[in-house]
Amino acid sequence: MPTKHTVRSYDEELRRLANTLTQMGGLAESQLAAAMQAVSRRDGVLAAEIVSADLRVDQLETEVDQQVMRLLALRQPVGPDLREIVSSLKIAADLERIADYAANVAKRSIALNQTPPVRPAFAIPRMGAYAQAMIKDVLDAYVERDAERAVAVWRRDEELDEMYTSLFRELLTYMMEDPRSIGAATHLLFMAKNVERIGDHATNIAETIHFLVRGDRLRELRPKGDRSTAVIPQPPVTAVQSMDAP
Amino acid sequence: MPTKHTVRSYDEELRRLANTLTQMGGLAESQLAAAMQAVSRRDGVLAAEIVSADLRVDQLETEVDQQVMRLLALRQPVGPDLREIVSSLKIAADLERIADYAANVAKRSIALNQTPPVRPAFAIPRMGAYAQAMIKDVLDAYVERDAERAVAVWRRDEELDEMYTSLFRELLTYMMEDPRSIGAATHLLFMAKNVERIGDHATNIAETIHFLVRGDRLRELRPKGDRSTAVIPQPPVTAVQSMDAP
Repeated sequence: MPTKHTVRSYDEELRRLANTLTQMGGLAESQLAAAMQAVSRRDGVLAAEIVSADLRVDQLETEVDQQVMRLLALRQPVGPDLREIVSSLKIAADLERIADYAANVAKRSIALNQTPPVRPAFAIPRMGAYAQAMIKDVLDAYVERDAERAVAVWRRDEELDEMYTSLFRELLTYMMEDPRSIGAATHLLFMAKNVERIGDHATNIAETIHFLVRGDRLRELRPKGDRSTAVIPQPPVTAVQSMDAP
Repeated sequence: MPTKHTVRSYDEELRRLANTLTQMGGLAESQLAAAMQAVSRRDGVLAAEIVSADLRVDQLETEVDQQVMRLLALRQPVGPDLREIVSSLKIAADLERIADYAANVAKRSIALNQTPPVRPAFAIPRMGAYAQAMIKDVLDAYVERDAERAVAVWRRDEELDEMYTSLFRELLTYMMEDPRSIGAATHLLFMAKNVERIGDHATNIAETIHFLVRGDRLRELRPKGDRSTAVIPQPPVTAVQSMDAP
């Protein structure tokens, strides 16, 4: 029964693709969790491990790309299978970025450990835990093909943006009060920005899951917004009307 | 001659996809050029136009995605056509990011204009011009299907990373010398980082073109590297061994 066999192995290939993606997601999530531990424990050894483990995530993305090209060429999928396969490409790209940002946080923590601890550093693991929960839930939404759950994650990004913007203000004030902290606070600014970007990629994945399950794109405007771009750089730091791009 | 007609309209669809992508590339390039003008002229009106024009780039990316899904579903391409179509998805995603970073630079320039000019601001348009030349050449490499030219662009990213890292150091020193400049210098740090990221996306596009033309991935390690992550945040600012992720 060659047809039956063909059909079965096609399903196996689709399952394999979903498994590679889930594996990639688990690794991205654990890389972020480890990066936050490296920051709060000031653990440079762990940070260096995270930086080198990022290569594995890149390899998994290449595997996803190759599996996708193979499936498209040999199976010529249509309908839901085609959405499934093309969505895998997009989700893999977002997971690669998430892991890359986690590795970047780890890298900066190594430089940060050369300096005395600064108070606002404690806010980074708090933001990281929030972003990690978004990643966990969006990966569950992917496994369960749960569009509602994906949209719920998508909405939570706004809260992460607010955490980032208030930390941005706090770090500016901190630097102005104690110029010796400028170098450390600058690394913290970029670490916070990395975590904020991780949230954006979790919302991208949520949008892809919505498309995968429902077949259409989220109509609403994405709650993406880094309001720190509109902070008028003058002490006292005050807000101006946000001008975030659509 | 239905077959002949089908073949012709398939070619037309492929050309249309390439045209949408080229249009997107031209827009991303001009958004970056305009953002640099907005910075050097301190032109808030132009900056606001750039921010709102970013929506058009997002729309073009959606058009590319829809054309790709349609081509995959109806034409079931293989070989070079399949590479062409899948590569379009990836290039469109990179162009969307490039335009988004340009809009972010424009957004920050509006906040920056609320403060007196700071010397290091002049370095941003210099970095931007370098990144813009990379985008122009990588788009030409795409139109001409010229893998060598793409690889040449790919190599140039290292120079942009160096421009960024030295500006990062300069801005840290600047803030330490004059704490009143901290807010402005912080926006400049992020604007410089945005331009550095634009260079990374130009190298991504170069890698995709290499895959599109040659059918295999660039073997070498990518010359990507933001060495500012390893800057020890203590005056005097000194470098430590770079720990960029593979």
